[in-house]
Amino acid sequence: MNELLPNYIAGRWQHGSGAGTTLVDPVLGHDLVRVDATGLDLHAAFTHARENGGAALRAMSYRERAAMLAAVGQVLQAQREAYHQIAVANSGTVKADSAIDIEGGLYTLAHYAKLGETLGDRRFLLDGEPARLAKDPLFQSQHVQVPTRGVALLINAFNFPSWGLWEKAAPALLSGVPVIVKPATATAWLTQRMVQDVVNAGVLPAGALSVICGSSAGLMDQLQPFDVVSFTGSAETAALIRSHAAVVQRSVRVNVEADSLNSALLLPSEAADSEAFGLLVKEVAREMTQKSGQKCTAIRRIFVPEALYAAAADAIAARLAKTSVGNPRNETVRMGALVNRAQLDSVREGLSTLKTQAEVLFDGSGLPLVDADPAVSCCLPPTLLGCRNPAGADSADRVHDTEVFGPVATLLPYRDAAHALTLIRRGQGSLVASLYGSDAQALAATAIDLADSHGRVHVVSPDVAALHSGHGNVMPQSLHGGPGRAGGGEELGGPRALNFYHRRVALQASSAVIAALNPAVAPVANA
Amino acid sequence: MNELLPNYIAGRWQHGSGAGTTLVDPVLGHDLVRVDATGLDLHAAFTHARENGGAALRAMSYRERAAMLAAVGQVLQAQREAYHQIAVANSGTVKADSAIDIEGGLYTLAHYAKLGETLGDRRFLLDGEPARLAKDPLFQSQHVQVPTRGVALLINAFNFPSWGLWEKAAPALLSGVPVIVKPATATAWLTQRMVQDVVNAGVLPAGALSVICGSSAGLMDQLQPFDVVSFTGSAETAALIRSHAAVVQRSVRVNVEADSLNSALLLPSEAADSEAFGLLVKEVAREMTQKSGQKCTAIRRIFVPEALYAAAADAIAARLAKTSVGNPRNETVRMGALVNRAQLDSVREGLSTLKTQAEVLFDGSGLPLVDADPAVSCCLPPTLLGCRNPAGADSADRVHDTEVFGPVATLLPYRDAAHALTLIRRGQGSLVASLYGSDAQALAATAIDLADSHGRVHVVSPDVAALHSGHGNVMPQSLHGGPGRAGGGEELGGPRALNFYHRRVALQASSAVIAALNPAVAPVANA
Repeated sequence: MNELLPNYIAGRWQHGSGAGTTLVDPVLGHDLVRVDATGLDLHAAFTHARENGGAALRAMSYRERAAMLAAVGQVLQAQREAYHQIAVANSGTVKADSAIDIEGGLYTLAHYAKLGETLGDRRFLLDGEPARLAKDPLFQSQHVQVPTRGVALLINAFNFPSWGLWEKAAPALLSGVPVIVKPATATAWLTQRMVQDVVNAGVLPAGALSVICGSSAGLMDQLQPFDVVSFTGSAETAALIRSHAAVVQRSVRVNVEADSLNSALLLPSEAADSEAFGLLVKEVAREMTQKSGQKCTAIRRIFVPEALYAAAADAIAARLAKTSVGNPRNETVRMGALVNRAQLDSVREGLSTLKTQAEVLFDGSGLPLVDADPAVSCCLPPTLLGCRNPAGADSADRVHDTEVFGPVATLLPYRDAAHALTLIRRGQGSLVASLYGSDAQALAATAIDLADSHGRVHVVSPDVAALHSGHGNVMPQSLHGGPGRAGGGEELGGPRALNFYHRRVALQASSAVIAALNPAVAPVANA
Repeated sequence: MNELLPNYIAGRWQHGSGAGTTLVDPVLGHDLVRVDATGLDLHAAFTHARENGGAALRAMSYRERAAMLAAVGQVLQAQREAYHQIAVANSGTVKADSAIDIEGGLYTLAHYAKLGETLGDRRFLLDGEPARLAKDPLFQSQHVQVPTRGVALLINAFNFPSWGLWEKAAPALLSGVPVIVKPATATAWLTQRMVQDVVNAGVLPAGALSVICGSSAGLMDQLQPFDVVSFTGSAETAALIRSHAAVVQRSVRVNVEADSLNSALLLPSEAADSEAFGLLVKEVAREMTQKSGQKCTAIRRIFVPEALYAAAADAIAARLAKTSVGNPRNETVRMGALVNRAQLDSVREGLSTLKTQAEVLFDGSGLPLVDADPAVSCCLPPTLLGCRNPAGADSADRVHDTEVFGPVATLLPYRDAAHALTLIRRGQGSLVASLYGSDAQALAATAIDLADSHGRVHVVSPDVAALHSGHGNVMPQSLHGGPGRAGGGEELGGPRALNFYHRRVALQASSAVIAALNPAVAPVANA
């Protein structure tokens, strides 16, 4: 049998007592390693993290915690090659796609290490200026933010075992909150390995970072009022988390990032030979194929003026046709596999659903797989669907509510700007929309119009063609999350990420007491 | 039969089709008016508010909405006498206690009218400065906040029919979000009357403000992804709201303000003849009797050094003994009634529970009621309980988890500062703690220590004896809410209140597009 990876809880490496779940290479079909969480003492795990990890982290200043993140980054940098090997084997991704996860995680970690340094030698944050509570300035209100006195339980998705860990753990640890991470089973290996490297390097205080691989059963039961849980994954699991007693009865704070039918919109004024048109086509093809479309932020719906429908279909199809799909170990391959057979089945099922209301504009199924056995590998070439006319875009409700988590998107023609906005809003809240155009005023106004139903609006104009960070790429400087169907969460956004891990409180006091609130001074009592 | 108050929804005054619930004078026992929501077309109500009210409010600038709030304030000012008459009849409160609700509501409204004016002629808010996304400054991220495109459902508690309405509605309306308020049935009259006066004055756009009195059945079912719900009331009802499909499946944003075992703490260094000791005694007696202890923020647990237990018990008891309780229409009366017989029963039951683990230090039941029939009125004189020694304070778990919503508090002796903090934290998250002392450094450090388990820490030192705003008084400048048992919500806090009614989004664009994001300019498309 393959190696059973240990969990790290309560300061010890511990194996689950069950047979475990086997992780599989989605290209070659080989078994890799096993994970298991059966029989772990979760109460001891959470208590250790909350009490030992929390106390140790809160005793450090933001600057000290920032240095700790920088040290974590150094440990991980030294092992990058090993992480890429795990990614290719367990996620079936080409090098550039593995990098989004691995280097993206390191970049985000570095961002928070740098940000934390600017927060200095303090243990809590001032929130705004003092406000008078009477005409006499002697009595005032000063808001502060202090680390929550609990654990951050991070439950992550299979598509980002590295970035998903660090984009949540970096703000939590910087805030002074210990982390217990539960990676998605399918790709838990990389998360487990990174935690192992960091733990073994001894750069974190005891209890600051734990990892539990396998079933999530019983994790939510451990949560107490000052703990928080941050989840990325399906809307169904999100609903289970939200309706758990920890949340409903104990007010445990929850952040959810769930399904999203993200849009790309070419503005009405653009022609088929415009630069903006070309930028849309390029970005759509990239988003559809990057990580085989397995990004929460990937473009699922493409909106173009109805007159440009055929031109857009042809141009996107032409790009997709050039995608070489197959074994990521072959250097000519641009797109690897889906993560496993369950996802392959799910994408095929979603495709059939969409096809009942859309036509196929590009069918990649005829493309030969490179170095990959179609009977064994989970490789699936891209498919572009479309609704031929604006009335079809209106009536095709599946297109607006079914997230197919693979290399699939649907082209939708619109009549005018108002129609496009109405169609985009039928996503009921998305992580990101991207706009393509050359008129700065129109782009700004449309971005504001879409702001209430998105967590991010990404604007691509010809002047930033070579510079822009990509529709689906999540930058730590910008908010990640979205309302409604997208889960209603907020992550990242530079310093905004710290809010989730802090408690805000109003201190009403005399100006002498407020002056004594020197955030650089440690609290005297430490009960 | 008494008058049946109409509801205001979908732009019309509408009576429920049922027999209704009768509101009762808690002092005289008279029937007053009836409320009923049976048979209302709630879908039409929410759609009208969301579409007509929302569009009209979003078309206004913050400055225009601020002027609208000021106009609401003027309408209400003109009817203050009528509101006081309703309060004395329906809430059984003395004039000063009615004022906390009525004048407190007007003050909060005025605060947001003034704050809104400073936001100017814009329709969305910039959130922070642009951040570079690459070394080249041409591509940047700018966060903005835009009004959520939905309805704010406000579900309020019986103890603040006026303040509870306006502390929620003012930030919502200023944010551009239409309001549907569901007051607690017992005291719905004042809320209904205020909405009626405002609607009749024509100072709000159609659909901006609706009121539904009676059962809350079906209200949550109407909520869509971009709606929000703000609730104040019991932890049981909060759990129902949080586990509703609107929240669990549709990511409707929720704010909860629930139970709270608020604390008052005399610092270790103070003696029985200190000014701080006197300030604690005065504030505790005031908090126990104001509104008959029916404030979410009232002091329930009083912590003093063990050596001062007897002195504190005597001093608080001496003050409580002077409280004249009875008919609020008699000018010698300082404390009126509980809101109704159900609350009276509930407080008596809670008192019995606490008495199983605490001794009675002051029993007001021997005090004669002034102008009130003990068999009819819901008047209940104050009771001070206590746990004689620190070990008793440790073992008396009911004292730390049972909120008795009436003129009842428990005195608890502590050994040292760390012991006091541990006991206070057994409240599992509270709205407010107040500290009494004279050493600014110790007060500041203790305030920070308690920050993670409270929404507000109120510090009373001798220099602000005459100035401070009161432990239980909620100022619009300061956050209102608390973690854990207190519900995990955040209201007020000056501009922070607007966050709940806005969506934050990151706009990633070229500097030309970001420069075109002039917040003073209206969005061009209005689909």
